[in-house]
Amino acid sequence: MNVEFINPFLESLNNVLGTMASLELKAGKPRLKKDEKAQGDVSGLIGMVGPQTKGSLSITFEGTLALEIMQRMLGERPTEINEEVTDMVGEITNMVTGGAKNILGDKGYDFDMATPVVVSGMGHTISHKSDGPKILIPFGSEYGNANIEICFDK
Amino acid sequence: MNVEFINPFLESLNNVLGTMASLELKAGKPRLKKDEKAQGDVSGLIGMVGPQTKGSLSITFEGTLALEIMQRMLGERPTEINEEVTDMVGEITNMVTGGAKNILGDKGYDFDMATPVVVSGMGHTISHKSDGPKILIPFGSEYGNANIEICFDK
Repeated sequence: MNVEFINPFLESLNNVLGTMASLELKAGKPRLKKDEKAQGDVSGLIGMVGPQTKGSLSITFEGTLALEIMQRMLGERPTEINEEVTDMVGEITNMVTGGAKNILGDKGYDFDMATPVVVSGMGHTISHKSDGPKILIPFGSEYGNANIEICFDK
Repeated sequence: MNVEFINPFLESLNNVLGTMASLELKAGKPRLKKDEKAQGDVSGLIGMVGPQTKGSLSITFEGTLALEIMQRMLGERPTEINEEVTDMVGEITNMVTGGAKNILGDKGYDFDMATPVVVSGMGHTISHKSDGPKILIPFGSEYGNANIEICFDK
């Protein structure tokens, strides 16, 4: 998987969070995920299906960061990861993937998106079961960390 | 969503587990999932995209049941939900959705499948963020419980 495929997701997350929550996360270096386990407390997942390839994306947040984004986007800060927070994470997952889809579509990589699914549970881990390489992009902030993982077949 | 859409997933899970693990789970009554939270320890998720609709499916297992299936399918019983178990759950998710896709394709409902993603973490919950109704099919066994959740837009 080349950088042409990764950058649109990275840019798209910061576009979405910058616009919706006035928050910029600091992106670390994208890397191949091997045995490493990225843990988080709330994750949005979405499937992608295109004529050339299919795959999956996840965005995992530490709870403290998800609650900070919630406060900035909606002006309220629940005490726990409730349904409003999972709705927001699903929405962010949809918008980030949609933003990347637009950029990639302009480059000739088309795919359709399934509907998002959100997982909540302290310290859960995500394993993408595609045949292709798994790319992990770490993001940091003073409020907590996030990760995007992208995986396409082939 | 009508029963024509639900039964293929229910049948497919018991086909897969019957063939691969000589195990039959007892299916409970499918129901609309509203506020209810189905908890589990390891879940397989997959996105579905078709010309008429798109959606998501999850199969959530209690850890004890996942380990029993592992022992029956592969003759080994890890002490925890490790990568071999998540691989197996991803494979089951793929096979169950693929089986249902074949049955539904014969009835004129076509969709493509994304690649599966597996979540592990004690007591996590799954929220499908589609606009359509969320159907929950509970399964029981002496080794633990499982749930299939299916959600299609529209």
